[in-house]
Amino acid sequence: MTPNSTTAEVRLAKLGVHLPDAPTPFGAYVPAVQTGNLLFLSGMLATSGHTATVVGVVGKNLDMKAGREAAYIAAMNVLALTKKQLGSLNRVSHVVRLGVYVAATPEFTDHPKVADAASELLRDVFGEETVSSRLVFGVASLPLGSPVELEVILEVRE
Amino acid sequence: MTPNSTTAEVRLAKLGVHLPDAPTPFGAYVPAVQTGNLLFLSGMLATSGHTATVVGVVGKNLDMKAGREAAYIAAMNVLALTKKQLGSLNRVSHVVRLGVYVAATPEFTDHPKVADAASELLRDVFGEETVSSRLVFGVASLPLGSPVELEVILEVRE
Amino acid sequence: MTPNSTTAEVRLAKLGVHLPDAPTPFGAYVPAVQTGNLLFLSGMLATSGHTATVVGVVGKNLDMKAGREAAYIAAMNVLALTKKQLGSLNRVSHVVRLGVYVAATPEFTDHPKVADAASELLRDVFGEETVSSRLVFGVASLPLGSPVELEVILEVRE
Repeated sequence: MTPNSTTAEVRLAKLGVHLPDAPTPFGAYVPAVQTGNLLFLSGMLATSGHTATVVGVVGKNLDMKAGREAAYIAAMNVLALTKKQLGSLNRVSHVVRLGVYVAATPEFTDHPKVADAASELLRDVFGEETVSSRLVFGVASLPLGSPVELEVILEVRE
Repeated sequence: MTPNSTTAEVRLAKLGVHLPDAPTPFGAYVPAVQTGNLLFLSGMLATSGHTATVVGVVGKNLDMKAGREAAYIAAMNVLALTKKQLGSLNRVSHVVRLGVYVAATPEFTDHPKVADAASELLRDVFGEETVSSRLVFGVASLPLGSPVELEVILEVRE
Repeated sequence: MTPNSTTAEVRLAKLGVHLPDAPTPFGAYVPAVQTGNLLFLSGMLATSGHTATVVGVVGKNLDMKAGREAAYIAAMNVLALTKKQLGSLNRVSHVVRLGVYVAATPEFTDHPKVADAASELLRDVFGEETVSSRLVFGVASLPLGSPVELEVILEVRE
């Protein structure tokens, strides 16, 4: 098998990480909607169940490292939800859009370094050839006090 | 007629609410663009004409209830614009994405409760089976001082 | 040739502006991803290379005019990246979505006037008949200190 034919599920297993339970909604929405071959995920936070596992504002009471940890946790939730929705991560043909929204101070400028913690995990699982476009900005605040929220649009195959 | 065959127009009539005039642009853009069977709406605010009917920041000079009122007004504008664009709300086959952007303080954490006022109206009109994915975050400020802006992507049928 | 048959490349040439080099990523993402006939661009900033050419927060240390200048620079980057990705601007059949995210104070309300500097350039190049839907809000902060970030989804033809 050539490296290019390695699947997302194989890459995930090689990383040795254990997926959390997929997040469930805390409001009048659903976790994801598919239209055509695009799957729109609801915003993924740094949560476990309905509790934020990292809380704060980057540049205020959280440093870059804590922001990256939150982005990583949210990206793990993306993987867990995607697997639950599609049955297998191998059904993702492309990560079309990754939005990384960081609760940050007006002075903060290193949002891309926080965002990379999410981008790198998705790249390591879905592969270099399906790396996403990206949108990154600092927001005033996020649900539950999470420092990071991820927006994900996936292209999926049957 | 089974409950599932009830249409959006019938549900709207049963709610007894009266749609406002559809918002018009205040800048170099159009109210909505359709590509394939996806309709992207421009951001809908808590406005009547080109004036915000609720103004402020949630957690600062507005409480949750005022935020929910703003979200409801913006969602009414979504319905009005959708009807104007498509001729009938029955042409909406799915609410793919609802983004709820709340002008909020850094300390605010209850964005989902504000967002639900919009989600619940769209669900009551378009039906449980087409409930959207959702993206919710707190922004620094919004056009005209509106406390809520809605992003909507709809899947439409001929 | 009728006005309607004028192409984006002809309009750009008539404007007499010179496109900058297309922005390159500063993180684990790619400049753009195409799925079907939709091209999702990564967020475009007021940058030259990996440096912001306008820095600040609108309503705080930047006025409206500086915000509009930043929006124009970011829109020039949109044109440069689109041309690099597609080979020709003539392949754009519609600007589906333009998001204009302005680093702004909680008190700022004139985001649409800042956004129009980007909308007007895209309209002048791609034509009145392909003007976008639009989403505009004020964010807490942006990568590199840029006062404006643009989100763009394009419909493209072969």
